[in-house]
Amino acid sequence: MAKIAIMGFGTVGSGVLEVCRRNAASIARRAGEPVEVKYILDVRDFSDSPDAALFTKDLDVILADPEIRVVVETIGGTRFAYPYVRRCLESGRSVCTSNKEMVATYGAELLALAREHGVAFLFEASVGGGTPIITPMHQCLAANHISEIQGIVNGTTNFMLTKMKREGMDFAAALKIAQQLGYAETKDPGDDVDGRDACRKIAILGSLACGHHLYPDNIPTRGIRDITPEDIEAAEKLDCAVKLIAWYREKPDNGVAAGVEPMLVPNSNQLAGVNDVFNAVLMKGDMLGDVVFYGKGAGKLPTASAVVADVIDALKEGSKVHDSLFWKPAEKLDGMLSDDTPCACYIRTSGVPAAMLSSVAGPGTLVSDHGDTAAYLIRSASPADLALVKEKLSVLGGTLSLVLRMLSE
Amino acid sequence: MAKIAIMGFGTVGSGVLEVCRRNAASIARRAGEPVEVKYILDVRDFSDSPDAALFTKDLDVILADPEIRVVVETIGGTRFAYPYVRRCLESGRSVCTSNKEMVATYGAELLALAREHGVAFLFEASVGGGTPIITPMHQCLAANHISEIQGIVNGTTNFMLTKMKREGMDFAAALKIAQQLGYAETKDPGDDVDGRDACRKIAILGSLACGHHLYPDNIPTRGIRDITPEDIEAAEKLDCAVKLIAWYREKPDNGVAAGVEPMLVPNSNQLAGVNDVFNAVLMKGDMLGDVVFYGKGAGKLPTASAVVADVIDALKEGSKVHDSLFWKPAEKLDGMLSDDTPCACYIRTSGVPAAMLSSVAGPGTLVSDHGDTAAYLIRSASPADLALVKEKLSVLGGTLSLVLRMLSE
Repeated sequence: MAKIAIMGFGTVGSGVLEVCRRNAASIARRAGEPVEVKYILDVRDFSDSPDAALFTKDLDVILADPEIRVVVETIGGTRFAYPYVRRCLESGRSVCTSNKEMVATYGAELLALAREHGVAFLFEASVGGGTPIITPMHQCLAANHISEIQGIVNGTTNFMLTKMKREGMDFAAALKIAQQLGYAETKDPGDDVDGRDACRKIAILGSLACGHHLYPDNIPTRGIRDITPEDIEAAEKLDCAVKLIAWYREKPDNGVAAGVEPMLVPNSNQLAGVNDVFNAVLMKGDMLGDVVFYGKGAGKLPTASAVVADVIDALKEGSKVHDSLFWKPAEKLDGMLSDDTPCACYIRTSGVPAAMLSSVAGPGTLVSDHGDTAAYLIRSASPADLALVKEKLSVLGGTLSLVLRMLSE
Repeated sequence: MAKIAIMGFGTVGSGVLEVCRRNAASIARRAGEPVEVKYILDVRDFSDSPDAALFTKDLDVILADPEIRVVVETIGGTRFAYPYVRRCLESGRSVCTSNKEMVATYGAELLALAREHGVAFLFEASVGGGTPIITPMHQCLAANHISEIQGIVNGTTNFMLTKMKREGMDFAAALKIAQQLGYAETKDPGDDVDGRDACRKIAILGSLACGHHLYPDNIPTRGIRDITPEDIEAAEKLDCAVKLIAWYREKPDNGVAAGVEPMLVPNSNQLAGVNDVFNAVLMKGDMLGDVVFYGKGAGKLPTASAVVADVIDALKEGSKVHDSLFWKPAEKLDGMLSDDTPCACYIRTSGVPAAMLSSVAGPGTLVSDHGDTAAYLIRSASPADLALVKEKLSVLGGTLSLVLRMLSE
């Protein structure tokens, strides 16, 4: 009988308990022994719960019990989760977490700490919820060099963009529905709609791909607040969908670049058809070509089932199988991991006649002309080119209201 | 330094050598030591090859060398591959293979033999080529019960159906192009176009899902020879694509069913958009919901890279990590693993006026009427219902030329 503890009894934490119980037989078969949740750490009062006997408010109770081999961290954030996870690893317990903020911020340090103490630090559920992404990436792709990642990794914004496309809603209306359905936080939806959640996830995937820590702070991040139904309609005319893309790529000069931004995704790209709360991550392997992992990005049981799969892995093998799930510490950069490669760019302008756009922005296609505002697809522009376009528009009394770069096919 | 041997120096076998050399550094990092191909077993003469010194025609040379820990089997078929793999496992060597025919036929036996000798028997590359499917299925989904699998697992037929759809080609023309491009065998393309290749793959995935061996002989299998451009056009009118689907599902009464057949796939299903030589496998987990794994299904380097990932795994862990990559032996059934659940069915008929179809086939929609031939979508029909439709048509002097069941969304 393997005994585990859960820290944080919120949505995912309670899901972990539920998955362990509902699929107890198959989990026991795969883990080689039954798995029992012995403790649940939470500061709140659960004395009315049928599982009241499992609860503790004291981490030392867990750490003092030699039966506990694996600890699940589902507290979220970093304030408590980070020092608690450190203490678990230092005490020789493997840790499985769904906490992308902690992994994106302290991943290299916690991986090194786990290695030092001969235990596992696993975080499949931190990207893609229940969809297997990190494990196939580090394990099955072991014989591949991954040069590029493109992902739709935030279900909330993807749901909103799908609503905006299918029902012509504006951002505010789509957000309201997402909040009503519990997909977006009511108080501050910024982590989702401003791209910070996606940024943490691409920081994790990028770190794993390049082998050293990429900090979220160094990843240029833009959300979807500025997207209008008109932009989405214009994208459709161009046979594209607007998606919030988290991307990572190697630069020709050996560095790496990463970003989170709404982009025009050609319908020929697999990511264009990923709708609602679904997530998908496309990776380019040098031997393999493109692979895509697709599934529901969040939800209590999907995410919990990924955490439990990690628990089984940690119980079976401890640190042994995870040599390739590792990246090195690195200094935080002063600048940003930006990419200057020119690409096709959709722009929305106001205050300048549409007929003037080709002379202002260079070769391209006029997509729509609504009098004061217009949309134009520049065939190819670098960030420097775009800065120049902005300046020229300003000189003419106009404004560059939005830029969406186009994703490669 | 880890030493391995390759049996069979065809497309995949030579790809394994190439991947080991081209990505030597990253493979060494992930395996924890450099990996060197010490022997290549092949009956043909490679004395002019720059690697001539590696070749041997004698398996005993490999088995007598204690340095060899892992053997790659890329001979194909079962005549030589099966006894050779048995001997490797019996001698305490882990085996990694891309040979779906051997795994589908002898999987349970070889898995048991590997377990008995404390070594690994791995076959990620047998389904989906380089796309990780088997590993995420058995590992990341460890906390899920998988009740249903739907896959496009044969790149050749998917390429042909894509050609037929996009360019209005008939089966013969699409086959010719597939042969010219090397996707289909010139001599006998039957393994692909008659569904046998897909049948082996779903036998493997189904065995893994249900935990006991499913024999290809027990899986009803139909290929795409009867599909016409008119059927594909009719499917488009119904907002569907015609795809060769390999499926597995649990039956309500506890048994399992599986099959390979061309089906109408609603465009709302992720599989409808999988085109060209790409493969995709959708799995339904009880906790996780739907996940899809998507990538190029074949090709020398993609498939070889999956074999090499297995080699790394086998070198690192031997049999230890693979407790859940296992299924039990089972008797071959007398009957077929068929499924009698009613579903929407597309039928093509000839010799009966289209106007009579609703009275012959029951409630549904007339899709096309070309005079002598007509296409009709029956709202819901079981195999028994379809047999009755066939009989009624025959009485009226008509023919039931084709039936395509519709896949669930």
